[in-house]
Amino acid sequence: MAQYAKPLARLVAEFERLPGIGPKSAQRLAFYVLRLSDDEARALANAITEVKAAVGYCECCYNFTDQKLCEICRDPRRDDATICVVSDPRDLMALERMSEFRGKYHVLGGVLAPMEGIGPDQLKVRELLARLTGGTVREIVVATNPTVEGDATAIYLANLLRPLGPKITRIAHGVPVGGDLDYADQATLIQAFEGRREL
Amino acid sequence: MAQYAKPLARLVAEFERLPGIGPKSAQRLAFYVLRLSDDEARALANAITEVKAAVGYCECCYNFTDQKLCEICRDPRRDDATICVVSDPRDLMALERMSEFRGKYHVLGGVLAPMEGIGPDQLKVRELLARLTGGTVREIVVATNPTVEGDATAIYLANLLRPLGPKITRIAHGVPVGGDLDYADQATLIQAFEGRREL
Repeated sequence: MAQYAKPLARLVAEFERLPGIGPKSAQRLAFYVLRLSDDEARALANAITEVKAAVGYCECCYNFTDQKLCEICRDPRRDDATICVVSDPRDLMALERMSEFRGKYHVLGGVLAPMEGIGPDQLKVRELLARLTGGTVREIVVATNPTVEGDATAIYLANLLRPLGPKITRIAHGVPVGGDLDYADQATLIQAFEGRREL
Repeated sequence: MAQYAKPLARLVAEFERLPGIGPKSAQRLAFYVLRLSDDEARALANAITEVKAAVGYCECCYNFTDQKLCEICRDPRRDDATICVVSDPRDLMALERMSEFRGKYHVLGGVLAPMEGIGPDQLKVRELLARLTGGTVREIVVATNPTVEGDATAIYLANLLRPLGPKITRIAHGVPVGGDLDYADQATLIQAFEGRREL
């Protein structure tokens, strides 16, 4: 049985490692790349290397950015008094799409998962505490996913942060329970935000 | 509403252009790339540029190869007397996976589609004719997809090549009509091959 030419086999293997890409899709993508012009293929390859070289974490909120501070942290029109805590930059972008929230964010980089060895030290919890020192923050909206771990993380943060002064709220369960924030529609997200309650 | 950092937005856009990748998948892939190590991201980018640089067409059968002749054309154990004609290198690989056929291939690079301006001159038909000059080819198995255009291409090739001597056969309709060769299971492909009949 004939094999793919080596560079082609390697590209198929690379695509297969991506999430949600099976062997058939990987093959289809590889053949698609072969049919691209040299410029188009180079643009794709460059976009991959460049994203790794240029994009890092915001020094304040740990969103992805290609500068020291992300677009939201740099924006003087955004309200410093409210911080919305999310587990992932994708959740931040999902909330931004509803165009309702005018405060700032804090990206934890995950949720508490003791079984997988993820405790507060593995998340950006210390960095969130540091943001409360000035006394400008009056409310922290915990917008972790409404899963067991997301809820546990919200309760942990509420217990940790409440003594420091700010009101701690949780987005309402307008977001389908067990679902993924990133996949919620905008109306659900707006409802969830408006229905937030103190923890 | 905040936007992605530019390099991230560009990578998402690049992934969105790939076949079968929607906005959500493109975003998921881009975030996945951000979490890869530098080496892993570079391996993916290199695989893309290298496949374009190193892989071209076999000078004999127009399969993809990184050498002058593809692995199958170079293989002295493969039978020169039978040529299986396919429209696409993916179909060739699908047939190879059944490990039944021991002849050689010819990749047309498409099928006749007059409405899209694809006639014999846009396919590797002339190159197929050239392979018949030696008189060693005794059978040509036309394994284009069993679609209207695939069938029309088979009939066209039969009329063109039959006067030159070789037996012209068509794979049997064991392959589901209207389906795609590349997605057929091996048992179906073996049946289709064994049930081939003269055109």
